Amino acid sequence: MRISEFQKNERIDTNLLVSQVLNGMASSGAPYLTITFKDNTGTIDGKLWDVKPSQLEIFKSGQIVRVVAEVIDYRNKLQLKVLNGEAVDQNSVDIGEFIPRGDVPLEQLRKTIEDAIDGIDDFDIKAIVSAIYRKYNREIFSSPAAARNHHEYYGGLATHVAGMLKMADAVCQLYPILNHDLLIAGVLLHDVGKIRELGGLALTEYTLEGKLLGHISISQTMVQETADELGIDSEAVTLLRHMVLSHHGEYEYGSPVLPLTIEAEALHYIDDFDARMTMIKKELDRTRPGEFSSKVLSLGNRSFYKPKGSE
Amino acid sequence: MRISEFQKNERIDTNLLVSQVLNGMASSGAPYLTITFKDNTGTIDGKLWDVKPSQLEIFKSGQIVRVVAEVIDYRNKLQLKVLNGEAVDQNSVDIGEFIPRGDVPLEQLRKTIEDAIDGIDDFDIKAIVSAIYRKYNREIFSSPAAARNHHEYYGGLATHVAGMLKMADAVCQLYPILNHDLLIAGVLLHDVGKIRELGGLALTEYTLEGKLLGHISISQTMVQETADELGIDSEAVTLLRHMVLSHHGEYEYGSPVLPLTIEAEALHYIDDFDARMTMIKKELDRTRPGEFSSKVLSLGNRSFYKPKGSE
Amino acid sequence: MRISEFQKNERIDTNLLVSQVLNGMASSGAPYLTITFKDNTGTIDGKLWDVKPSQLEIFKSGQIVRVVAEVIDYRNKLQLKVLNGEAVDQNSVDIGEFIPRGDVPLEQLRKTIEDAIDGIDDFDIKAIVSAIYRKYNREIFSSPAAARNHHEYYGGLATHVAGMLKMADAVCQLYPILNHDLLIAGVLLHDVGKIRELGGLALTEYTLEGKLLGHISISQTMVQETADELGIDSEAVTLLRHMVLSHHGEYEYGSPVLPLTIEAEALHYIDDFDARMTMIKKELDRTRPGEFSSKVLSLGNRSFYKPKGSE
Amino acid sequence: MRISEFQKNERIDTNLLVSQVLNGMASSGAPYLTITFKDNTGTIDGKLWDVKPSQLEIFKSGQIVRVVAEVIDYRNKLQLKVLNGEAVDQNSVDIGEFIPRGDVPLEQLRKTIEDAIDGIDDFDIKAIVSAIYRKYNREIFSSPAAARNHHEYYGGLATHVAGMLKMADAVCQLYPILNHDLLIAGVLLHDVGKIRELGGLALTEYTLEGKLLGHISISQTMVQETADELGIDSEAVTLLRHMVLSHHGEYEYGSPVLPLTIEAEALHYIDDFDARMTMIKKELDRTRPGEFSSKVLSLGNRSFYKPKGSE
Amino acid sequence: MRISEFQKNERIDTNLLVSQVLNGMASSGAPYLTITFKDNTGTIDGKLWDVKPSQLEIFKSGQIVRVVAEVIDYRNKLQLKVLNGEAVDQNSVDIGEFIPRGDVPLEQLRKTIEDAIDGIDDFDIKAIVSAIYRKYNREIFSSPAAARNHHEYYGGLATHVAGMLKMADAVCQLYPILNHDLLIAGVLLHDVGKIRELGGLALTEYTLEGKLLGHISISQTMVQETADELGIDSEAVTLLRHMVLSHHGEYEYGSPVLPLTIEAEALHYIDDFDARMTMIKKELDRTRPGEFSSKVLSLGNRSFYKPKGSE
Amino acid sequence: MRISEFQKNERIDTNLLVSQVLNGMASSGAPYLTITFKDNTGTIDGKLWDVKPSQLEIFKSGQIVRVVAEVIDYRNKLQLKVLNGEAVDQNSVDIGEFIPRGDVPLEQLRKTIEDAIDGIDDFDIKAIVSAIYRKYNREIFSSPAAARNHHEYYGGLATHVAGMLKMADAVCQLYPILNHDLLIAGVLLHDVGKIRELGGLALTEYTLEGKLLGHISISQTMVQETADELGIDSEAVTLLRHMVLSHHGEYEYGSPVLPLTIEAEALHYIDDFDARMTMIKKELDRTRPGEFSSKVLSLGNRSFYKPKGSE
Repeated sequence: MRISEFQKNERIDTNLLVSQVLNGMASSGAPYLTITFKDNTGTIDGKLWDVKPSQLEIFKSGQIVRVVAEVIDYRNKLQLKVLNGEAVDQNSVDIGEFIPRGDVPLEQLRKTIEDAIDGIDDFDIKAIVSAIYRKYNREIFSSPAAARNHHEYYGGLATHVAGMLKMADAVCQLYPILNHDLLIAGVLLHDVGKIRELGGLALTEYTLEGKLLGHISISQTMVQETADELGIDSEAVTLLRHMVLSHHGEYEYGSPVLPLTIEAEALHYIDDFDARMTMIKKELDRTRPGEFSSKVLSLGNRSFYKPKGSE
Repeated sequence: MRISEFQKNERIDTNLLVSQVLNGMASSGAPYLTITFKDNTGTIDGKLWDVKPSQLEIFKSGQIVRVVAEVIDYRNKLQLKVLNGEAVDQNSVDIGEFIPRGDVPLEQLRKTIEDAIDGIDDFDIKAIVSAIYRKYNREIFSSPAAARNHHEYYGGLATHVAGMLKMADAVCQLYPILNHDLLIAGVLLHDVGKIRELGGLALTEYTLEGKLLGHISISQTMVQETADELGIDSEAVTLLRHMVLSHHGEYEYGSPVLPLTIEAEALHYIDDFDARMTMIKKELDRTRPGEFSSKVLSLGNRSFYKPKGSE
Repeated sequence: MRISEFQKNERIDTNLLVSQVLNGMASSGAPYLTITFKDNTGTIDGKLWDVKPSQLEIFKSGQIVRVVAEVIDYRNKLQLKVLNGEAVDQNSVDIGEFIPRGDVPLEQLRKTIEDAIDGIDDFDIKAIVSAIYRKYNREIFSSPAAARNHHEYYGGLATHVAGMLKMADAVCQLYPILNHDLLIAGVLLHDVGKIRELGGLALTEYTLEGKLLGHISISQTMVQETADELGIDSEAVTLLRHMVLSHHGEYEYGSPVLPLTIEAEALHYIDDFDARMTMIKKELDRTRPGEFSSKVLSLGNRSFYKPKGSE
Repeated sequence: MRISEFQKNERIDTNLLVSQVLNGMASSGAPYLTITFKDNTGTIDGKLWDVKPSQLEIFKSGQIVRVVAEVIDYRNKLQLKVLNGEAVDQNSVDIGEFIPRGDVPLEQLRKTIEDAIDGIDDFDIKAIVSAIYRKYNREIFSSPAAARNHHEYYGGLATHVAGMLKMADAVCQLYPILNHDLLIAGVLLHDVGKIRELGGLALTEYTLEGKLLGHISISQTMVQETADELGIDSEAVTLLRHMVLSHHGEYEYGSPVLPLTIEAEALHYIDDFDARMTMIKKELDRTRPGEFSSKVLSLGNRSFYKPKGSE
Repeated sequence: MRISEFQKNERIDTNLLVSQVLNGMASSGAPYLTITFKDNTGTIDGKLWDVKPSQLEIFKSGQIVRVVAEVIDYRNKLQLKVLNGEAVDQNSVDIGEFIPRGDVPLEQLRKTIEDAIDGIDDFDIKAIVSAIYRKYNREIFSSPAAARNHHEYYGGLATHVAGMLKMADAVCQLYPILNHDLLIAGVLLHDVGKIRELGGLALTEYTLEGKLLGHISISQTMVQETADELGIDSEAVTLLRHMVLSHHGEYEYGSPVLPLTIEAEALHYIDDFDARMTMIKKELDRTRPGEFSSKVLSLGNRSFYKPKGSE
Repeated sequence: MRISEFQKNERIDTNLLVSQVLNGMASSGAPYLTITFKDNTGTIDGKLWDVKPSQLEIFKSGQIVRVVAEVIDYRNKLQLKVLNGEAVDQNSVDIGEFIPRGDVPLEQLRKTIEDAIDGIDDFDIKAIVSAIYRKYNREIFSSPAAARNHHEYYGGLATHVAGMLKMADAVCQLYPILNHDLLIAGVLLHDVGKIRELGGLALTEYTLEGKLLGHISISQTMVQETADELGIDSEAVTLLRHMVLSHHGEYEYGSPVLPLTIEAEALHYIDDFDARMTMIKKELDRTRPGEFSSKVLSLGNRSFYKPKGSE
């Protein structure tokens, strides 16, 4: 049974993803939990009163749990009164039922990306990119591109990269001064550190590495480690590391160096442009023609207008 | 005779464009002028001692003047010791000999732009764009896109617009949520005010309107005036004015409103991207592989690296 | 019956201005509305349960509606349980009963402003200002000067302009270098675009034009359109447009150009000074001597101290 | 003989104010001085070769010195080749011959200021202001209001204060909520610390106190010291100190607290307005109608336009 | 009876510190108070319904009051339903029971500080510091160093100063260029104005002087007043005042001048370092190893990680 | 013969370090070079006229060259008229004669640093630090800590690290919450990337890696590479990488993450403090008591005052 189908007063017994757990204490002194549950149809809050220590081990953020509960009405919203929970073998469940996926089929993304790697001419660059995509293949094709805001779903990273690859191709045709191999490799590598920055079953929590190092430095070091393994020590390694480090474009957004090659500058713009178009589209899809969207925090808190007559 | 051919100690008698005039006073109390002359092969400084009042009327910034002078050597650079100057009928000269042109032939630019206008479906939008391009045709195809930095030459505005039109087409294919008519019209209209912002025969001086109003406000008002004349009062007019006003993307760059439609956001990025690629290319063209370019003031004073092995 | 007189448990049947409407959905799936009602004595929230589609058309933001409701007590505050609503002919009601007015009588404002226009000597400037005040007379004398913060009431724009005119007169006497005609015209024109920026019956909602263009650009274009109509093309038009564009004084406050004439600089200061004095006064009027006011968001979140012994 | 009358090749023997001294060393190892001399008609540079130690004691910045020199021409500018210098009894000379004065006669300034002090009703406030103006009378009426930019001349502080007093009077009439006594006292006291911040005979060099403490803190402490001496301990003392401390209006301009009373806010605006009008006027007085002034560094490097037809 | 021991449904009758009072009005029109009570074991909110005017005089922020109340449960938190309150002779209570104290015994702090004063060699500096510590001895040893964030307890100022004195000693040994007397005196004097900036019995409310002047200006003026009293007028006074004024290191943090001596720069760093280490330690003490602390607003809203294996 | 001993009109023939080379072209069209020469006694400019291609290969920045030249006087400064130059075997010269050294003997620095490494208890941390100091021993003890500003000499990096180690020890005693092993390792590792950031014989030019990656990212990756080699994968590696990445303390100074452990915060402060004290001391050493130093660009362009009576 799916969250979107829950009805008031019914009793449910189904697997749900625990996405957040907050501890509380009742005035009686008894501990209770406020838990946010998730599946790929929606989100619902729940309360577990008089928690037993064993239950604290079961209801952990990022775990899929078998939940027995009553659906109640609290201040005009549905809520779960959790009666019991049971640990579930995390490998026996299909994570795809609990977290959203993008619109583009994975196989299509895979083809776009593999074609791009094949299209690289430079021997060293191709070797580094291929090695990283071989080593981390599973993670790269499942990771989201961000914990929230844009491409925040299963396969989001690959979707973001595939979108940028197309843009990079178009841009190389319009501005022939750009080195196609460098720019394509920059697109493919710029965010690979996300696979270590984000963790949890749902891949949307920051890991310790993610918080203390950030995906920019993780990605950059992965490039160097791979070059070490392959024994590559050419200028191209420095140029790739530079593109990774500078792709946020500004110090205040976490790039320790500013773009100093034309490909690094182009990479920054393509990345930013894809993220922005994707975020605005997501908001406009929920907005009626002739109205303004909700405010988008990561775009300077702007609301976007959807013109009358837009479909 | 062209500036690039001037030799030390020779006497020249040729037409030159006066691009700057500074007044000085010798210790004897006699006034003198320091004049910068220009043609499309280069630039040279000159001095005119013991100026007569009539000469002050002849040597004016933006004028083409017949100059009689001696070429001398001053601190290892050539300089003109101006002996005399004579007013020239400004309509009898070919301005193209005095200011640089872009690489793309005008006819090709004209075709790209006319095709883009033809491709607009929306009746009101097409009417406004067509009317403006008809009314200001000559100015739009001769004006530079900026006084310096990028596209700072005869036809620069049209070159900039044509480059952006191609990018806009590519972007509309990759992000189908974008309204093609609006984005194309935004590209065509965003900088039309440059034709009033910049003036002088060489079209690279700011006019009073340019300094006190800026091309953003001039362009926006031109759109409204044209809509008034055509009796168009639809939402499209507001959307076009909004794109023009917001295309610099930030208050600090002179946009009084931030982009609030997805087309306005896209227009800002395409404009910025074309300007940046063009500025960096201009610098890298003068830089040897394996070296850093000069610092580019309008790109945060960065120097750009040209990788070894670049052609 | 007025909002300030509502008593718990009584039933009311009276005209009220709908100032905000929020949609909700009860857990039963039935839609309900949370409506904020207003008259010139106060504000009260209401709930309309089990909304019928026809009611959605009646309770619209900016409409005056005949409301039948019960006054109830909800968490120590009065609230309306709306029983029914009925459309009202908007022209048959006196808007003045529903929105607040300023302290200065309209006739006095009108005289101050008309005297100022009469006092302009320059022919072109006087023609432009007169034409705009003739064309938009009704709107200018009813519009607020802002949606909130200061002069946010019926006639607020005229009150703000009249206050600034007096200050401008004083300043011209103390600094005779100022061109009186330009400064007075700047005061009269700087905010006229507010009449299109703000809309709704209560004139305190931003229109689409207001949000996408802003009153600065609207005002500036109105000046140019009027000059077009009058066939005036003198430097004065550019100077007036410049004063309008630059009167916020900083890019980050939405001025696309900074003040570049002494009159533009003075206009910016007089505008800012009047707004600040008015905002602080409004807060201090609600503060007891020896205490600090509430924080004023638009003044950098400062609280202002009212010295002991102030009346 | 005055600087404005110096002629090439003549020998001069006259008193001059030394406004700056720079040490140099010739390649022979011999020390020389580059000295800037000043009187109230102008400024001229000079060189003193092969300096003797005794001369180092004579040519000191801020001293009036009897100078014997030849007027020579160096790169089209007049310069002094200093032959000798002789110490002069500083009390025997009229400093007014060496530094510029303002346009308003001192007696008129004195009257404006004394009337303002007389007009204060509050006993404590009047006592503090009177005591400070009595104690520092000579310095207050001779000090400039700044080392450069505006009111940078003998009597400049009093001129600035007198101008602000008139503005404060006008403002109090237009905004009756303002406490006249506080605002007038704020105007009179806000810059008194300038008399210790600036020193040298010409009163345009920063003293050690000036550099390490700044006139804001010096002024504020002078108010407290005077209150201590008079045994005044009322809230008015805190309000006066607050106005002094906050009158620059922003932390970045050296105010350790922001204005938190309406009088402090008004004082800041009046001070800023007077400084700005004075600076722009000074530039426009040197600019021809229809042209832009030089850039004004302390006004954000703007150039101001002087409209055609301005006198 | 202490707040930490309160139980649901019991009746209490005990002295409590009133730390905050908010006025409300029930829908019946009757006024009520929301009061925050405090002792050194915790904090609890209370409601007093149907307030009598005499009670308004008793329940005032900063007062210790004898409270009779019922402990109730409101939304899972304990709350007081206040039945009555009675004024208490503020001198008869031990303030130490109501506000927290630091870990270091007062006598130890006193010794560290007195030794530091004894260790000053310079006669003038020692005289000024001694005089201030003699005059304000009681306040200096009881005042907190801040209203919140760090050292926000009885004796906090002395604790902060003592910690900085040790750091200053270490720093003087490592960087012998530092003048030990100046730096030690700077540490001792930099925050003395806190004793006037903060007030209330609990010494954690800002006074009017504190809000309008700030502790930096208060401290600086105290140094000058003391120098006046002692008849000291040497450069050392200016240097001490400078260190006090500049110790926040940046204009935006309320320093009207930036550090311009090496001792002023060192003082700023030692002060900042002690505050930061103390704030982070306070948060980490509440954080489990392997987890992140709460966000610390005054440290740029960062959360700090406590490594696994930390005690 | 040393630069400090050069006399006008003498002929010199000695080895000099070429620190900068600029190309010029005489009006005759002949190329010439402006070369800055250096040894550890000073700096002198030279001109080489009518350059031969072979000479272009000899006079290269960073090379020690045997120079034959005449010492001439140009505008009161000594200059070399270079007659000839000859390549020198770079390994046969003592670089110590051409670049300055610090005051602390290398052996003392080596001991301080080795003792610090020995004092680390944690096995993993010690292993990583030891391995890096073993691998890069020669570079670490010869590299400067910066290209200019502070510790910009042979051994400067080791001098900076040794100074910080002492400060870190003192700080750990005063704030026992700090993990001594982490902080000491942070000091030892934070700048090791400088050995790749800076290059040239004189070790004061930025390398390509230095410009495109920066020493922060280089250092961080060196830590990871070393951990890879040693097979260490504990939390300590992440903590060390975090300290390296965050030690500049602000995004705008090139740290891609802010300090999120107390040791990272302490490291940032100790680094900054040592750099600041060293820079100010360097300036004050050249300043007379009672005067202000030159402006220090990297300290916000401040001048520092050296009190009267300082030695």
